[in-house]
Amino acid sequence: MPKLDFWYEFASTYSYLAAMRIEALAKQAGVTVEWRPFLLGPIFKAQGWDTSPFNLQIAKGKYMWRDLTRLCEEQGLPKFHVPAKFPLSSLGAARAALALSDEARPAFSRAVYMAEFSDGLDIGDAFVLEAILQKLGHDPRVVLVKAGTQEIKDKLRANTEEAQRLGIFGAPTFVLSDGEMFWGNDRLEQALAWAKK
Amino acid sequence: MPKLDFWYEFASTYSYLAAMRIEALAKQAGVTVEWRPFLLGPIFKAQGWDTSPFNLQIAKGKYMWRDLTRLCEEQGLPKFHVPAKFPLSSLGAARAALALSDEARPAFSRAVYMAEFSDGLDIGDAFVLEAILQKLGHDPRVVLVKAGTQEIKDKLRANTEEAQRLGIFGAPTFVLSDGEMFWGNDRLEQALAWAKK
Repeated sequence: MPKLDFWYEFASTYSYLAAMRIEALAKQAGVTVEWRPFLLGPIFKAQGWDTSPFNLQIAKGKYMWRDLTRLCEEQGLPKFHVPAKFPLSSLGAARAALALSDEARPAFSRAVYMAEFSDGLDIGDAFVLEAILQKLGHDPRVVLVKAGTQEIKDKLRANTEEAQRLGIFGAPTFVLSDGEMFWGNDRLEQALAWAKK
Repeated sequence: MPKLDFWYEFASTYSYLAAMRIEALAKQAGVTVEWRPFLLGPIFKAQGWDTSPFNLQIAKGKYMWRDLTRLCEEQGLPKFHVPAKFPLSSLGAARAALALSDEARPAFSRAVYMAEFSDGLDIGDAFVLEAILQKLGHDPRVVLVKAGTQEIKDKLRANTEEAQRLGIFGAPTFVLSDGEMFWGNDRLEQALAWAKK
């Protein structure tokens, strides 16, 4: 079965859109998805930026919120919630995602995105992550303790470094076994079609 | 008939893709298109940039060329030609486009894009513009003399200032009568659907 690496960042609005639809589309296409959380912060920093480009470019940022509102409606998602602060800290969520099994990661990731962009919660808050884990039937203490270990910290750092090495500059990004790369929620269909080639 | 303003920049790769398909799609949707050439240079300059963001972000630029190659293939366009220099100077082409009538502007604009991104010609070169005008049955001397008048220079400046006022930060951008704005070739279908609402 062809495979697609789904590179996503928990603070990224367009990663949210992709996360909510990738499994159904991939199943339909017969493509296996590997969920690869990483951090955009270090990649932006290497570019000389201290925040998201949506903050550095006022007009583009303003447009992005409008675009997201329209796309959520089109995609049948709940009303898009512009977070009080952007980007929210995604470090804790990314580590928790990596502390979970490959099987449990997608549902947790979707729940984090829903909390962030639909319920307006701060995913940088450990209590929010705890409540999400609890609701999904995990033992929050076990997961969060594991998320704080050196092993998981290293895993996330390795993911981020691999993303940078692959030439990833934004999220979501879809990378196929042959190295072909597709950037943005808008390219999900094209990436899946390519995977089946 | 609903109306859509098509804001495009002759140096912009994604404007090329939109220019090549907008008329057929708009006709199908029953939407009138106004072709509005403008310059991104002054908008980038206001952002503190001295060149295209695709040059400022190496990884994103590299990806863009690959993306364009794939999209041209998908769209049935000739093999995409990465210009020897990017962005090419689009000032002359934009002025010539505005020197033409509203009716003649689309065909000329498409021909400029084909010269640039399919034939690998320098659209900053007046001889290239001359040959395009000639081929389309215009008197190149008449058009290029008009393109150099203060009236046309002012028209292009006014277009660019209006784009900036509208919050346009990239090209192509589609703006509807109600002020709704859609950025990028990927949003053309959504913009046309919105125009019909």
